[in-house]
Amino acid sequence: MKKILLISLIMSLNVMAESDQFNPAFLQQLKVLRDQALDSQLAYEITESLTTEVGARLAGSPGDAKAVAWAQAKFKELGFDRVMTEPVPLKRWTRGQETARILSPFPHNLAITALGRTHPTPDEGITAEVVHFATLADLQAADKSEVAGKITFISERMVRSQDGSGYGKAVAGRGLTAQVTAAKGGVAAIIRSIGTDNNRTPHTGGARYDKDIPSVPAGAISNPDADLLVNMLKRNKPVTLQLKLTSHWDGDYTSQNVIGDMLGSEKPDEYIVIGCHLDSWDLGTGALDDAAGCGITMAAAKLIHDTIGPLKRTIRVVLWANEEYGISGAIAYHEAHKNELKQHILGGESDLGADKIYALGTRVAESALPTVDTMMSLLKPLDIEYAGNQGSSGADLIPMRRAGMAVFGLKQDASSYFDYHHTANDTLDKINPESMAQNVAAWIVVTALAAEADHDFGFGLSEE
Amino acid sequence: MKKILLISLIMSLNVMAESDQFNPAFLQQLKVLRDQALDSQLAYEITESLTTEVGARLAGSPGDAKAVAWAQAKFKELGFDRVMTEPVPLKRWTRGQETARILSPFPHNLAITALGRTHPTPDEGITAEVVHFATLADLQAADKSEVAGKITFISERMVRSQDGSGYGKAVAGRGLTAQVTAAKGGVAAIIRSIGTDNNRTPHTGGARYDKDIPSVPAGAISNPDADLLVNMLKRNKPVTLQLKLTSHWDGDYTSQNVIGDMLGSEKPDEYIVIGCHLDSWDLGTGALDDAAGCGITMAAAKLIHDTIGPLKRTIRVVLWANEEYGISGAIAYHEAHKNELKQHILGGESDLGADKIYALGTRVAESALPTVDTMMSLLKPLDIEYAGNQGSSGADLIPMRRAGMAVFGLKQDASSYFDYHHTANDTLDKINPESMAQNVAAWIVVTALAAEADHDFGFGLSEE
Ligand SMILES: [Zn+2]
Ligand SMILES: [Zn+2]
Ligand SMILES: [Zn+2]
Ligand SMILES: [Zn+2]
Repeated sequence: MKKILLISLIMSLNVMAESDQFNPAFLQQLKVLRDQALDSQLAYEITESLTTEVGARLAGSPGDAKAVAWAQAKFKELGFDRVMTEPVPLKRWTRGQETARILSPFPHNLAITALGRTHPTPDEGITAEVVHFATLADLQAADKSEVAGKITFISERMVRSQDGSGYGKAVAGRGLTAQVTAAKGGVAAIIRSIGTDNNRTPHTGGARYDKDIPSVPAGAISNPDADLLVNMLKRNKPVTLQLKLTSHWDGDYTSQNVIGDMLGSEKPDEYIVIGCHLDSWDLGTGALDDAAGCGITMAAAKLIHDTIGPLKRTIRVVLWANEEYGISGAIAYHEAHKNELKQHILGGESDLGADKIYALGTRVAESALPTVDTMMSLLKPLDIEYAGNQGSSGADLIPMRRAGMAVFGLKQDASSYFDYHHTANDTLDKINPESMAQNVAAWIVVTALAAEADHDFGFGLSEE
Repeated sequence: MKKILLISLIMSLNVMAESDQFNPAFLQQLKVLRDQALDSQLAYEITESLTTEVGARLAGSPGDAKAVAWAQAKFKELGFDRVMTEPVPLKRWTRGQETARILSPFPHNLAITALGRTHPTPDEGITAEVVHFATLADLQAADKSEVAGKITFISERMVRSQDGSGYGKAVAGRGLTAQVTAAKGGVAAIIRSIGTDNNRTPHTGGARYDKDIPSVPAGAISNPDADLLVNMLKRNKPVTLQLKLTSHWDGDYTSQNVIGDMLGSEKPDEYIVIGCHLDSWDLGTGALDDAAGCGITMAAAKLIHDTIGPLKRTIRVVLWANEEYGISGAIAYHEAHKNELKQHILGGESDLGADKIYALGTRVAESALPTVDTMMSLLKPLDIEYAGNQGSSGADLIPMRRAGMAVFGLKQDASSYFDYHHTANDTLDKINPESMAQNVAAWIVVTALAAEADHDFGFGLSEE
């Protein structure tokens, strides 16, 4: 009975929230647009354009400059009111040759890819015996004598889940193994790919890097290759591996954040910041990671603008540079805009593929929660639940969120995302246009309500 | 009503067939073994052994000789009564470098693999404009002026089905495109991989080869790359491709068919021939194609021998050499045994992966159909239906079948087989041990009943 009363109370609050905060005609327009967006192909078309006309775009590579040019042209073509680039300095890391071959007891070629920012092997490679650890913790606990002179191998497998939480658990190995191995006198490190698939397409990704901390060459082998290696090691004969990973640091480079603004009619200097990262790893065409996020957020801003017209605040779509190995674009933007951070009213980034959104999380002031209720009343028909006010957002919003900006996260079903993430398999065919359109509808709801709200969403919120 | 009578009649015929042809104690033993086989890991263990300790084993490669040594040792370890090798001469084809890069309008690296037995490009590659055809028939119908000087591209996609029939439909393009392209003055040929997946793991496979017919270098690009190329071509700008496929013919080589016999107690010179092909393509570890077939048939013979003991006829397990680019082992065996073909009473090959068997097809004399009924009565509990007496078997039985040998086929569910077939993704993890055990149970039933039957299965049967 109490529950029913509470639900009734919440429902009437929702109705009040709608009627109090927003013009009913605007809310009606927004609902119509939300439903129209479910039939829109625009996000998919933008994603197809970026992956086909640019493709792989590792920060500092020729694809990086092509992507920046593409983004400027695309924002203009879509009719954004203001298109800008802002310089992003970065240290360039370049992939080289990458091969791994078991020499004995049973010769095999393994599918391997270097981890971003790791040291190169000599051109002739490194040949050494493999020492196997089930987890990073086991490697950390190992005696130096077990590791010295060896190639370490961590075989922990990432667990599949809707919220992608298996990634956070397994990815520590990717980040730290090169440094931990070096500290114990190992000569190189390999890990089982941080991924949920069974394809011979290894998963790259950044390793921690600090020029003052010793490190070794490090790569990820595909899940089937990790299975093979585990099975071979079970035979209790020494396994000798030859590893060539000739990546290298390649000097300074200046990339660009590319920004498209749909200007606000009343408060053009207040921003609802949405977007994606423009860079990708170099193995696939970066379709899920993160052309999809660009398609979704650019389409959301464009559809709001064309269908409802300018809202009170500016909708700013930022295509961030070099998220993958340094969140360089996020750092540069934060630095460049540090005197106007409070004009960044609410921020979100789409960076977990294109499958259906199942929840909204927020980190906003209590005073803004009635508007979150309104968002939820419009998101519920899209099968989206509220995930509470302890939410986070994408990696590119970390610097501004830490500085106090309010954020939201539209959580996508990540069940299959880590089958493809950071692999050669991250290509357009992995995107379901219908699921992607549901994303656009949800981003339209949150973005438009934030841009039209009469209040801010708080600043200086506590960190989790 | 008529239907019910017919079913009753068939059922009583089945019972009669059982009681007439075979000793009831033997049939009881066979049923128990069939059910025990569902819990056996032996086939999986054999497959794990071949894929781990040998791995890729392209005919003529170092893996070929390793596989032959492995097979002899494994037959002996399993207690086969007689282990033999028979020489198989072949012309060796060796894969080289394989890269494909779109140079304009939008640079991309494509995942490509050379088709077996095709011509090499020069070391510096071939650079030419791409001309697109939806199907092989469209290429065949094209005017020479459309093709001359160009790289042809066939984009037809294989359709997924339980019986794998989409393969036969699409594979003609793989076989013929190099010759058809050459005849029209094209400089190279690429096809969409003959596969049902969306992975960046292109599917190799043999192309037709005749030293007197002009041909060109030819490769298959992965499905996602084919999608990309199709999307790029839709933009109606010339697409320029640089292709390097430096495969080559590499002289004469002698491989071996490896034969394991479980000798018959009454008619040791009459053979029930089962088996698999021992060679594989070089991209994966040849787990589904065809280590699985070796595991299934070796385990079936071993379990019959160990549990029931010797049957009347010899069970001969042949691990065929070089099925993939020439059925060389099949040709050599047929030649070597042509004076004793009639002693080959019934033959079958397991060569379509390891998923569940759903049907038995036969091509036997009418007089042997009562024994087929008995087979079916023991296969039905495994969810296996009868597919009629117009059946076929694996590629390695083609020469003997054409010469008149009776054959059977235990049809596996091939729905996912062509996701992995002939790719780097053909690895052990694609095998479900439970489905594989069902295969072993079915092979035990058919093999044991054929070996124990008092009659033959016919010879000189009409070809389809
Ligand atoms: Zn990302
Ligand atoms: Zn990423
Ligand atoms: Zn095969
Ligand atoms: Zn094959």
